[in-house]
Amino acid sequence: MSKKQYMVIFQPSARRGFVDEGTNLIEASRQLGVDIEALCGEKKVCGKCKVRIEEGFYEKFAITSSRSHASEWQEEEDKFFTPAQKDEGYRLACVAKVQGDMLVFVPEEARAGKQVVSKAARDIHIDWNPAVKQYHVQVVPPTFEEPAGDFERICAELERNYGLKDLNIDWPTLRKLPRRQRDGNWGVTVAVWMDKEIVRVLPGKVEDSYGIAIDVGTTTVAAYLCNLRTMEVIKTVSMMNPQCKYGEDVMARITYHMMNPGGLETMSNDLIEGLNKLVVEACESTHPPKKRKKKKAEEADEIIEAPDVTEHAEELDESKYLNLIPADIVDMTIVCNTAMHHILLKLDPEFVGLAPFPPVIHRSLDIRARDLGIKINDSAYVHVLPNEAGFVGADNVGVLIAEEPYKFDQTQLLIDIGTNGELVLGNNRKLISCSCATGPALEGAQLSFGMRAAPGAIERIHIDPETHDVDYKVIGRDAWRKYSKPEDMKTKGICGSGILDVLAELYASGVIMKSGRFSKKQKSNRYRVNPDTKQPEFVIAWANETSIGKDVVISQKDIRQIQLGKGALYTGCKLMMRRLGLDKVDSIKIAGAFGTHVDKTKALIMGLFPDCDLEKVFAVGNAAGDGARAALLNREKRAEANWVSRNVEYIELTVESDFQQQFMEAMQLPHMKDEFPHLEGVVAPEVLHQK
Amino acid sequence: MSKKQYMVIFQPSARRGFVDEGTNLIEASRQLGVDIEALCGEKKVCGKCKVRIEEGFYEKFAITSSRSHASEWQEEEDKFFTPAQKDEGYRLACVAKVQGDMLVFVPEEARAGKQVVSKAARDIHIDWNPAVKQYHVQVVPPTFEEPAGDFERICAELERNYGLKDLNIDWPTLRKLPRRQRDGNWGVTVAVWMDKEIVRVLPGKVEDSYGIAIDVGTTTVAAYLCNLRTMEVIKTVSMMNPQCKYGEDVMARITYHMMNPGGLETMSNDLIEGLNKLVVEACESTHPPKKRKKKKAEEADEIIEAPDVTEHAEELDESKYLNLIPADIVDMTIVCNTAMHHILLKLDPEFVGLAPFPPVIHRSLDIRARDLGIKINDSAYVHVLPNEAGFVGADNVGVLIAEEPYKFDQTQLLIDIGTNGELVLGNNRKLISCSCATGPALEGAQLSFGMRAAPGAIERIHIDPETHDVDYKVIGRDAWRKYSKPEDMKTKGICGSGILDVLAELYASGVIMKSGRFSKKQKSNRYRVNPDTKQPEFVIAWANETSIGKDVVISQKDIRQIQLGKGALYTGCKLMMRRLGLDKVDSIKIAGAFGTHVDKTKALIMGLFPDCDLEKVFAVGNAAGDGARAALLNREKRAEANWVSRNVEYIELTVESDFQQQFMEAMQLPHMKDEFPHLEGVVAPEVLHQK
Repeated sequence: MSKKQYMVIFQPSARRGFVDEGTNLIEASRQLGVDIEALCGEKKVCGKCKVRIEEGFYEKFAITSSRSHASEWQEEEDKFFTPAQKDEGYRLACVAKVQGDMLVFVPEEARAGKQVVSKAARDIHIDWNPAVKQYHVQVVPPTFEEPAGDFERICAELERNYGLKDLNIDWPTLRKLPRRQRDGNWGVTVAVWMDKEIVRVLPGKVEDSYGIAIDVGTTTVAAYLCNLRTMEVIKTVSMMNPQCKYGEDVMARITYHMMNPGGLETMSNDLIEGLNKLVVEACESTHPPKKRKKKKAEEADEIIEAPDVTEHAEELDESKYLNLIPADIVDMTIVCNTAMHHILLKLDPEFVGLAPFPPVIHRSLDIRARDLGIKINDSAYVHVLPNEAGFVGADNVGVLIAEEPYKFDQTQLLIDIGTNGELVLGNNRKLISCSCATGPALEGAQLSFGMRAAPGAIERIHIDPETHDVDYKVIGRDAWRKYSKPEDMKTKGICGSGILDVLAELYASGVIMKSGRFSKKQKSNRYRVNPDTKQPEFVIAWANETSIGKDVVISQKDIRQIQLGKGALYTGCKLMMRRLGLDKVDSIKIAGAFGTHVDKTKALIMGLFPDCDLEKVFAVGNAAGDGARAALLNREKRAEANWVSRNVEYIELTVESDFQQQFMEAMQLPHMKDEFPHLEGVVAPEVLHQK
Repeated sequence: MSKKQYMVIFQPSARRGFVDEGTNLIEASRQLGVDIEALCGEKKVCGKCKVRIEEGFYEKFAITSSRSHASEWQEEEDKFFTPAQKDEGYRLACVAKVQGDMLVFVPEEARAGKQVVSKAARDIHIDWNPAVKQYHVQVVPPTFEEPAGDFERICAELERNYGLKDLNIDWPTLRKLPRRQRDGNWGVTVAVWMDKEIVRVLPGKVEDSYGIAIDVGTTTVAAYLCNLRTMEVIKTVSMMNPQCKYGEDVMARITYHMMNPGGLETMSNDLIEGLNKLVVEACESTHPPKKRKKKKAEEADEIIEAPDVTEHAEELDESKYLNLIPADIVDMTIVCNTAMHHILLKLDPEFVGLAPFPPVIHRSLDIRARDLGIKINDSAYVHVLPNEAGFVGADNVGVLIAEEPYKFDQTQLLIDIGTNGELVLGNNRKLISCSCATGPALEGAQLSFGMRAAPGAIERIHIDPETHDVDYKVIGRDAWRKYSKPEDMKTKGICGSGILDVLAELYASGVIMKSGRFSKKQKSNRYRVNPDTKQPEFVIAWANETSIGKDVVISQKDIRQIQLGKGALYTGCKLMMRRLGLDKVDSIKIAGAFGTHVDKTKALIMGLFPDCDLEKVFAVGNAAGDGARAALLNREKRAEANWVSRNVEYIELTVESDFQQQFMEAMQLPHMKDEFPHLEGVVAPEVLHQK
């Protein structure tokens, strides 16, 4: 028996369609292609998915909408709405279920914006030794005296010219071999994977081959299209992780899997579809601008011509374009955290989310792209780097093989802050790692006005210690507020880098105290007690500066969330150092987009990590992506990754006996007890030395 | 613009449907599920596909059929029909195209019958060392101190208990691992391929695993379901090669590929679908009779329960059944000739059909069953044995590894006669092979009344030297004609073993002479000159003994066809022996269904091979299938197969300078010049020593 269906229309996009009775509005929005923020993964705790159900008959849509068409109000919704809002029809989209036709208004705050992603490739040294290498051979045509098979004749030449022995060939490539060999007049170029298997045969002589390195973050995905011969990064492309709509953090996505039959497949397929789009986008960037249209990979692979096709003068101009197609990509490497790894590969992530958090597998995997549904060359492998532990994944291994702390005498502390914090400490004698539950607050999630690093987000904040006046900079607008015109882009929230700024600035300016509580000595009307929540709060942007028509504030509760995150990270650093008997480290490297955007002085002011000479703190960019690229271009890095993933000692911090005490002390700014000599002269003495 | 379509109805089956204008009737019959014999692959030369187009209005079908609804009569049809038949509406189905509605009668001779297939497994010695072995391990559950991944914990136990190192795991199997490990309470049974890769994980302890060895012949396909632990053959199943409808021999199928876009895929897919049905049939034979119904392989694999499910008394009786499902099959080996190999694997067979006949590949292939579309265990490999040469394929390699001539001092001649003849000669010092174009006549094809070994086929013939009267035995009838009642099964043609009998008997009884021509001293009215063809012919069965209402005869032209086949084989044997400087061999082994059914005395009488002590001639049954089974149960046989396939010297006979002279001499019975001392006392001296 099929379910009843009702018409649901979302405004302002006017997307509409029929959905099953009992579907909640988040799920309905997904089905109809509307993105509603669901930071907590529908656990009814983040309150981001506020929508308004309209009342009345709407002639334009020929629909009668009514609040009574939604399922009953639930207790969990009380804390997110005032009685007035409830009367206006506001609901949480994750709670309200469809029981009749509905017109639903999605306020701007609840809309998931297009994120500004910046994961550029850095210039790191990589030795050339790609897993896939390309060889040209000219074979002798068969005769009655020597009628050996097409494949055997190629192998004989590969052995004679390049010393390659006992090669296999992947079946789909074997299928193309006889025709391509004859098209190339018995000359062929073959791509060989790991000196073991032929994964592509092209007619004639072809110089270059291509690969793509991918960094799948919980929130963003970056892809680096590389020339496997020259090692050049041809194009960097990126996107939001399409799984964000199922929950902002890894636990929310694991929960989505456990609550929804087929949820794992859905999340995986969304990501794979996204990866396929990234591949197409990267390839199209190599086409002449006019000709950038989508080709079907398989078809296109069939019609590749010998490289001497561009003989005509009028085509010479186009010859500077590579005109790559997905079939030209013969190798792919992927780094990601353990949960993303499991979800991408459709491995049950339930157990990695349950103590003691064992992953399904540590070691790297070589999976045929076609098995995964990834549309690059038919026979290409996808190399997925190894996981260290349940909460320290292949992305951290990527950081390690990019930074190689195991090759240095000096002790390094590597901090990779994404939605989860991952730390590695050590040198060429010993390496330990840990994971800190920094929570999403450091990235702006679960705060009153936290948002992704999208246009309209506040990314920099300065608070005047004298007046407590606030200046800020918004993504998408060049100048700081003070120097902007009113018609410039308005704000609607604060993103990760702004969050770090705000805590340091609130503290350094004396708005909040060492404990994180608001000071009693407030100097502006920005400080107030919210009449609804009874919570103290501080206004960062007044309503007339915003696109949402209300003040963007940071509340006492928000500050506490950020303190929990920074406290967890500080505790991690400190306990790791204690484990190795260190009271200082030789250098700190901060990886990730976070590291690129964070102001290291402010990071030290808020006590993100123990006191340190700021000269020795480095942002290393997307080191995880660099690691993926290193593994793409140098097969020894793959072996190194497997080695290091099993030789970093993973420390479970929460089992340390004084963890709670350490954590409590680290919540203070910059710390309850620890000294910060490097902040002398940076922060006013009365602030730094307050008791 | 879509084509016009017309209704076509085939009688007597009454299968009907619309087909595109311009479709020939063979293609139409395929589309509508009617099997019309197409021995020559629609080359208009075999004349087997005679059909009659009816004229008039047929009320039952509400159709007006007319001969004018078919495309024009073509010259090639003249030789197959008398003017009277032409008037009755007879046409070749491969010529006549649909240009209007038609009612088509398919005479019994033109119907492709269900073949009697007999390819039983022989008892040969095989050492136990299967490619896939099964291991049980009990692993330690993860703890905070040792939270290693599920896969790594299994690997650690496999290394500790069985010395298995550096194992991989196939992705779909990895996906099932976490749940199965927990279902088995941390005890699992894993199937490991070639000590390299885990291809199955089952909860708990499971003793047995299963594999299937397959022999794909041009005409028949046999499959042997084996227990990989005990090496027992659990079930042998067989079928016609579903590709027969595209042409009887390999060249006809290669032609079908070249003339029909997508023809290669169609032929391959038909075979793969057939293999999947064989797998299901073999599995169902292990179910209690009442419960034999089809299961979906993947689903079934998911709901497999721990082996302690049959606790209830009433189920105990069922416990003696293995209840296998396709997912229980973790390994498959395939032998076939080179053309079948290429068509099965969708490798372009064009070049293997063109001089100098190079195959696309010799060496064995391990292809994931799922890539081929073969529905056994998700992660299983299909091992396809290596090819020797364009016309000596993996099936001959199968014969070699089953018979192992390379392990003996004695010189053996191995004869494998299928639709093509393949010979191997040699011993532990040297092995040579060749292919002889025996043509389809030895199997009964392309003769006036040749047919497959199906019910109604004459399989044994005796001709009385005194009276020239004929006795014969029909498949499906226990007694010879002389001892049968008139209502017993009637005949309609002669199959392969009957064809060999007929030539030997015609010769030994003096009906024909050494040259193959009819003797002038005929003793019965069975000899006559056909009034239509003007050809001499000899009646084997009178019209009243047949189901087709006319005399089954053997014509002078038929005799010539058989002589061509036997002459090619004899020439092959002789030139091979000359190449090794031998005038006799120590033993002759005849492989294939042909070898099982042939009367070795009659084979010698007709001169199928050089004179030989009949005590040293052995039928070795389906040795190719035995080779497939050996490769399934002993991985070293796979290496041996690759070795022998590259160490048998393939001889192209047709390039020998005296090939034509040798061939001409070998066409005579038993030979123009060669002596046959072992026929003294077997054949009358005046026959044996005629000039």
